[in-house]
Amino acid sequence: MVEDVPEPRISGPLEVLVEIGGAGLCRTDLHIVEGQWAAKSGVTLPYTLGHENAGWVRDVGTAVTNVAPGDAVILHPLVTCGLCLACRAGDDVHCENSRFPGIDSDGGMAEFLLTGARSVLKLGPSLHPVDVAALADAGLTAYHAVRKAVPLVHPGAHVVVIGAGGLGHIGIQCLLALTVAEITVVDVSEASLDLAKRLGAHHVVRAGPATVSEVRDICGGGAHVVLDFVGERGTEAEGIALLRRAASYFVVGYGGRIDIPTIDIISNEINVIGNLVGSYNDLADLMTLAAQGRVRLHTRTYPLEAINDAMDDLDAGRLQGRGILVPATR
Amino acid sequence: MVEDVPEPRISGPLEVLVEIGGAGLCRTDLHIVEGQWAAKSGVTLPYTLGHENAGWVRDVGTAVTNVAPGDAVILHPLVTCGLCLACRAGDDVHCENSRFPGIDSDGGMAEFLLTGARSVLKLGPSLHPVDVAALADAGLTAYHAVRKAVPLVHPGAHVVVIGAGGLGHIGIQCLLALTVAEITVVDVSEASLDLAKRLGAHHVVRAGPATVSEVRDICGGGAHVVLDFVGERGTEAEGIALLRRAASYFVVGYGGRIDIPTIDIISNEINVIGNLVGSYNDLADLMTLAAQGRVRLHTRTYPLEAINDAMDDLDAGRLQGRGILVPATR
Amino acid sequence: MVEDVPEPRISGPLEVLVEIGGAGLCRTDLHIVEGQWAAKSGVTLPYTLGHENAGWVRDVGTAVTNVAPGDAVILHPLVTCGLCLACRAGDDVHCENSRFPGIDSDGGMAEFLLTGARSVLKLGPSLHPVDVAALADAGLTAYHAVRKAVPLVHPGAHVVVIGAGGLGHIGIQCLLALTVAEITVVDVSEASLDLAKRLGAHHVVRAGPATVSEVRDICGGGAHVVLDFVGERGTEAEGIALLRRAASYFVVGYGGRIDIPTIDIISNEINVIGNLVGSYNDLADLMTLAAQGRVRLHTRTYPLEAINDAMDDLDAGRLQGRGILVPATR
Amino acid sequence: MVEDVPEPRISGPLEVLVEIGGAGLCRTDLHIVEGQWAAKSGVTLPYTLGHENAGWVRDVGTAVTNVAPGDAVILHPLVTCGLCLACRAGDDVHCENSRFPGIDSDGGMAEFLLTGARSVLKLGPSLHPVDVAALADAGLTAYHAVRKAVPLVHPGAHVVVIGAGGLGHIGIQCLLALTVAEITVVDVSEASLDLAKRLGAHHVVRAGPATVSEVRDICGGGAHVVLDFVGERGTEAEGIALLRRAASYFVVGYGGRIDIPTIDIISNEINVIGNLVGSYNDLADLMTLAAQGRVRLHTRTYPLEAINDAMDDLDAGRLQGRGILVPATR
Repeated sequence: MVEDVPEPRISGPLEVLVEIGGAGLCRTDLHIVEGQWAAKSGVTLPYTLGHENAGWVRDVGTAVTNVAPGDAVILHPLVTCGLCLACRAGDDVHCENSRFPGIDSDGGMAEFLLTGARSVLKLGPSLHPVDVAALADAGLTAYHAVRKAVPLVHPGAHVVVIGAGGLGHIGIQCLLALTVAEITVVDVSEASLDLAKRLGAHHVVRAGPATVSEVRDICGGGAHVVLDFVGERGTEAEGIALLRRAASYFVVGYGGRIDIPTIDIISNEINVIGNLVGSYNDLADLMTLAAQGRVRLHTRTYPLEAINDAMDDLDAGRLQGRGILVPATR
Repeated sequence: MVEDVPEPRISGPLEVLVEIGGAGLCRTDLHIVEGQWAAKSGVTLPYTLGHENAGWVRDVGTAVTNVAPGDAVILHPLVTCGLCLACRAGDDVHCENSRFPGIDSDGGMAEFLLTGARSVLKLGPSLHPVDVAALADAGLTAYHAVRKAVPLVHPGAHVVVIGAGGLGHIGIQCLLALTVAEITVVDVSEASLDLAKRLGAHHVVRAGPATVSEVRDICGGGAHVVLDFVGERGTEAEGIALLRRAASYFVVGYGGRIDIPTIDIISNEINVIGNLVGSYNDLADLMTLAAQGRVRLHTRTYPLEAINDAMDDLDAGRLQGRGILVPATR
Repeated sequence: MVEDVPEPRISGPLEVLVEIGGAGLCRTDLHIVEGQWAAKSGVTLPYTLGHENAGWVRDVGTAVTNVAPGDAVILHPLVTCGLCLACRAGDDVHCENSRFPGIDSDGGMAEFLLTGARSVLKLGPSLHPVDVAALADAGLTAYHAVRKAVPLVHPGAHVVVIGAGGLGHIGIQCLLALTVAEITVVDVSEASLDLAKRLGAHHVVRAGPATVSEVRDICGGGAHVVLDFVGERGTEAEGIALLRRAASYFVVGYGGRIDIPTIDIISNEINVIGNLVGSYNDLADLMTLAAQGRVRLHTRTYPLEAINDAMDDLDAGRLQGRGILVPATR
Repeated sequence: MVEDVPEPRISGPLEVLVEIGGAGLCRTDLHIVEGQWAAKSGVTLPYTLGHENAGWVRDVGTAVTNVAPGDAVILHPLVTCGLCLACRAGDDVHCENSRFPGIDSDGGMAEFLLTGARSVLKLGPSLHPVDVAALADAGLTAYHAVRKAVPLVHPGAHVVVIGAGGLGHIGIQCLLALTVAEITVVDVSEASLDLAKRLGAHHVVRAGPATVSEVRDICGGGAHVVLDFVGERGTEAEGIALLRRAASYFVVGYGGRIDIPTIDIISNEINVIGNLVGSYNDLADLMTLAAQGRVRLHTRTYPLEAINDAMDDLDAGRLQGRGILVPATR
């Protein structure tokens, strides 16, 4: 539903008003509309979606020193307090007082978004808001999971990526940039596997009844790391079945459930690692990779008014890469 | 079943023959007799149980340089190759060519055990085989899990220990030695909770319908680390329910199953960490703690001939601390 | 020089005005008066010393949410921006825009000190400002160095502490709390060695011509970690000479110089690790240790007016433990 | 001096006899001939040099299970015991009972070399002994230093490599494989800088009086990591002067000395990190990089008889890349 809302105004010393250049559309937006996040976010519908945002600073509060009007910025998805122990440890995502515009308050599928000084990251001259907007959440989540996996991946280690869609295709590029892993990508879609191959994946496997045995063969007996960007419809069990001993299964996608006997966890000494979006510094790293051309988003832009078409395309699987909503004023 | 078997002899250059001083009795021994490990270990019954062993070196192969006949030793539970990449990384437990006496070949509930140079650790003068035997597996597993948790535990962090039995009571002592955690122990048995309290646990909670809310209150909202030494009969779900955000659940005990929606794993960014027995160097560390008096096993000795009584006592919950079988010859 | 200065006032939204309860006196204050820091800090004398401060919040800026007037607080020694990448990584000390009251701007040897929201840490009910003030810098530096060393210290590893004075006696207590190291303390003063012994050091050695051989014998050939809280008058060379292979020398004290052939560094693969004051979260950890009674400062209080006596006592070695200056109004 | 020596024979169960395919010539060989290592290695001249070896297995002891006659192998430079705590931690290089053929006993500038099962690593089909021999020590040292630096290098971090010779040109390739650092190379030789540029270094700087200011400008104020493959003739002071705050200087080359005031170490919280040759598993990783074509040695082969010419060329700076001695029989 597209409607006119009043333009937000700066009211606190650390606030920043951003004119949106692009807002990424995410499967989570579908889940919100379906009501799947209602209990977790506590938000009351209706509100403005959009948690992957980039644009230009239009106004700043009196205590803001890191950006000025006119700066092109990408927005870390959370607005954090900066004072709790989690924030003080660089662990923005577990801030005790955060809000998440687009999830639990008004987001960026609008002309303007009110955020905080701690959430804006200046873009270098080679990066344009509409091109990087979807890195703010999808990309940042993929980068964060990969960065956590890096210490587990020696040269030649086997990493399996399940799902080469919006997050997965960024994850593959991050793996190629940060590791010398041997990468195997599993997906149900030939188009996604083609993309994975073009990006540099070493092996691709069409998901099917033989996935586990096929991938285990490629991996010489099992993967050192599995990154599951799907997390539902059976990939949870498959992902764990693909591990070798002492290996780790990184859950990124969601919707399904993990169900595994404790004896299997201990006898193979495997780990199940949860992953949420990355920190502000992760986002800075990711912008470096983007500026170097190592991470490139595959996107399709829609005018903000066409949000319903975009959501339909996403839901129906017609959307290759990431959908980006652009306000008419741009 | 107690019977006469021929005394084993050294046949390879790296073999070591050990006269058993004590062999710990473990719940896994019950599980083996029940057949629960048949598929995983591939062993054919009958064979000699006993995977927690200490004693004296009686003979060594020609290439053995680290021990000599007469040395008091504790045995790392695995016989490892020393040449695979896992062994070369200090990760003995994931040796590609290991055997596990007492699980997949003849163990230490006997007068003699044939093992390898890489499995024997000389005991300092203050340690006696019968006192430390059960540290070889139960203790080593508890120490290993605690050591993996140490980097996650800042001063004052909340650690919950589920189960203060054979492994748990060692885990509590290791936590007190290696961290400044605030420790809460959950158990169904008052006697175990009393022991936990005497060892230094800061809070104890009798397991019951209110466990989760009671423990979360103590932890100011949830634990940073949960060490589950039970891993069955509902502790799996409880353990995960006790976590705060970004926290980790360490599975040590087994028998049950983990069953959790992927959305819960990712939205709280929690981890499920599998734990097996520790490395040889972990065992050396643990012997240091034992020699310092920081880790003390609560044991009850039985003559080797009374193994069936010991197993009955263990099965019936009549065995406080760890049962140790001692050959008649000692 | 004691003189009247105007009471500072809140002028920015994130400022906090603290009434000083106690200000620690540090050897660095002597070095500042001697001019040793002039080039590094860029400050123009005269200004108010005092970089180890604790007290009570008297006023707060409009955007301050973490403390309120009346709260007892300890002050992290730096006032940091919270927005640079170092701050965002939890590495307050390397903030790109910090100031250091008492070093490069007016400090806490006064009735009031103006600081920022990011620098104030609320004290628990069991801690009193005058008792903990000197933990703000001396204690925090010692804790930070120990915490960095913890991953290098397995149970029974040898740690040598050079200097059991103001910082060293805190370092020893932190080591005892966080590790199961075997601790050897070296000092020129019998009184300091007595204190070390009472705190729990396992071995003490009076510094002299045989220090290196004596300590190497105690350490079974060399230390795994040396923490040098002196860093001058020969301890630099001695500290390095005490290392075993693959060991690390932590420099905390200063005044002297490291001078070592590169062949010695590489053939033993040793490390020289610089240490500055800890982060805000380190300070929170240290307050936990103080509240638990694991870290106790040995202090002597002086009225603020008697600062010159206190500095004379410190310079002449008459000051056991840490000198704390207390404003007359308290 | 080239002379006939008796062919060595297997005498122990874990020994391996290797027919040398190529032996790298190293600046350390010059230092040995000059007597610089006499005190450290304790070896009596004359003996056979050659500590960078690869070839084919010709015979094995009775307990050797990891290689068989005919296998192409590269040799880890140390012969280690496999039983001390360092070996058990995967830290081969600090084995308490090691020997170092070519440094403290007969090495590989010969037709045959006697080594141990723990020192031989099978080569994949794409790798030939003469091509990889010099990776056994020079390459392994460079890889090891880079691998230690990896956790300090976020995307876009500045890494300075001093010296793009035998070790440095491998170090650059390892950095490009394992990090997304921005790499600046300093050398006195234009030819070496050209090589660095071709390999992918982002900036090259001819060493001279302005090196420090020039490189600091490139690094936006200082490097996060400096890898000094020279370690003499002033690079020690320059390397440290290139650091930003909280940065690390990795010493790899040697011959000079570090001389730095302790106040500089602590006020910038910098580290000096010693580096020796890597572990066996590091060598396995490096062979993976070589097989993938990510690390390529620039070599020049000499017949074994021409060793004196090779040493003269190395000493006179006429040898681009690494000199490899090949026995006449190959």
